[in-house]
Amino acid sequence: MNSSALVERILEGSPRAVGRAISLVESGAAEGVDLLKKLYPHGGRARVVGFTGPPGAGKSTLIEAVALNLLNDGSGVGIVAVDPTSPFSGGALLGDRIRMQALYLHPKAFIRSMATRGAMGGLSAVTLDAVDVLDAAGFDWILVETIGVGQDEVDVAACVQVVALVLVPGLGDDIQALKAGVMEIADLFVVNKADREGAEKTSAELEALSRINPATGNPPPILRTSALARQGIPELVEGLRQVHARLSVPERARQKGLQQAQARLSRLVGDRFAEHVRSSPLWVEGLDAIAGRRRDPYSVCESILKEVLC
Amino acid sequence: MNSSALVERILEGSPRAVGRAISLVESGAAEGVDLLKKLYPHGGRARVVGFTGPPGAGKSTLIEAVALNLLNDGSGVGIVAVDPTSPFSGGALLGDRIRMQALYLHPKAFIRSMATRGAMGGLSAVTLDAVDVLDAAGFDWILVETIGVGQDEVDVAACVQVVALVLVPGLGDDIQALKAGVMEIADLFVVNKADREGAEKTSAELEALSRINPATGNPPPILRTSALARQGIPELVEGLRQVHARLSVPERARQKGLQQAQARLSRLVGDRFAEHVRSSPLWVEGLDAIAGRRRDPYSVCESILKEVLC
Repeated sequence: MNSSALVERILEGSPRAVGRAISLVESGAAEGVDLLKKLYPHGGRARVVGFTGPPGAGKSTLIEAVALNLLNDGSGVGIVAVDPTSPFSGGALLGDRIRMQALYLHPKAFIRSMATRGAMGGLSAVTLDAVDVLDAAGFDWILVETIGVGQDEVDVAACVQVVALVLVPGLGDDIQALKAGVMEIADLFVVNKADREGAEKTSAELEALSRINPATGNPPPILRTSALARQGIPELVEGLRQVHARLSVPERARQKGLQQAQARLSRLVGDRFAEHVRSSPLWVEGLDAIAGRRRDPYSVCESILKEVLC
Repeated sequence: MNSSALVERILEGSPRAVGRAISLVESGAAEGVDLLKKLYPHGGRARVVGFTGPPGAGKSTLIEAVALNLLNDGSGVGIVAVDPTSPFSGGALLGDRIRMQALYLHPKAFIRSMATRGAMGGLSAVTLDAVDVLDAAGFDWILVETIGVGQDEVDVAACVQVVALVLVPGLGDDIQALKAGVMEIADLFVVNKADREGAEKTSAELEALSRINPATGNPPPILRTSALARQGIPELVEGLRQVHARLSVPERARQKGLQQAQARLSRLVGDRFAEHVRSSPLWVEGLDAIAGRRRDPYSVCESILKEVLC
């Protein structure tokens, strides 16, 4: 299939074409970039929600439940998993996969895990590319699962419209600790496994914390779910809709769009440039000198920039 | 204090000077870079060990125990925590801090947590800078605590000499899942909280996994500890020494040194370049066009590179 035909099939929403496109993008082939250029103008319509939180918080089960709820309402749902410990990422239990059959077999669902870091750029780059493909393919909702730690995660969070932070009761003082991390990027909190002891305490702590937080505007809503028991899911979906609507008022959306573009372009430009200079003789010499402690990375970096910039 | 005086104090191992230097580096001030250039040639002597693993695995308690063991042997120990949920990172329980008094008060110990992402580059950049400062200051061992997920973590792992992956019993199928992630960068496995049920099973699973893994050379040793009860710590320290010695044979060390230089220089060059082009008019126009879906990030990136490269 040539590139234009593939683009057409994607815009029609063909799951096979979508899968193929994401594989192309992951492989780092030039056709992948070509494709992304053609698809990008068609995107911007999907509601993109990031689910972030520690391993074991039940993010995948929660995403499964949310996705089924949305699918039942007639929406198309794309899922991108970045968490290597996610059932979506093939590190899965067979049991999980069997349970998730309804989701895997649904004609309006598409599930993809980003296992590799991609040929160029980090995991964040290919993840955002996958979101672009799904967006162009007309999925109404795109749910992104990430662990929520590290630069990649922050980059992904910067590029979704709503960030849901998923926690479980009994994290105890970890909640305090989270303050330093992803806490401030959360638009909505989910206390999952809320049938466990301590759910109330966890919610109360979150509430206290988000009141201390000098967030502008409304504090993030706190919702309790039990994804496995399918409890609290309609309320969560409604919460996501509301937060999305609140964050989509024109001025705010414009701001967010620019931030997203900035985060994305910074990483892209940086990665491409690093790739470019790796063929320079200064690069090879520099590596050797750094490894031998004859030169420091900062001086080598400066020499390289001086050499290649106009 | 001027820059040369500060360098001198750092080379003498003054904790205050080291602290000051890391703060300078974190602030992104030009003096920080200046300092790093002067310090870098003096480094390369420390044994740098990364402790990575999920939140709750007890990494900080383990590092505390390992550090005390090394200090008792007369070594100087620097600790850098990148994990935002670490007690070292101020997300700490007061109780943890009190327990860790012996470590905090030890004259040959230096503890620093990298809470911020640093002014330029990501968390990984400032972390590695902090390691350089400690290295130049003559610390014999530098222990780096990270969560082990995401690009930053991979970058940090690429720049330490030994990676210890810390797990706990009862992770169950998470171990399988870990395969996809940090598993292959581990030089040594620690099953911490080994007094808990399932420690044997976890060790056995790790062993099975590392046998499947097509690793070159020896499979990573698997050690059981109970950091809080101070069990298995001398054995772990001995294990770290052995792995370090094994990885330090000249050819291997040279290879690793080049890899580290490459990982570090790539990120540095990329970040600096992105910073550079942010002042270009193409950048501002580009962001607006991307946000409005009039242009795609890839085309904008190409235009920018074309403009600024010779």
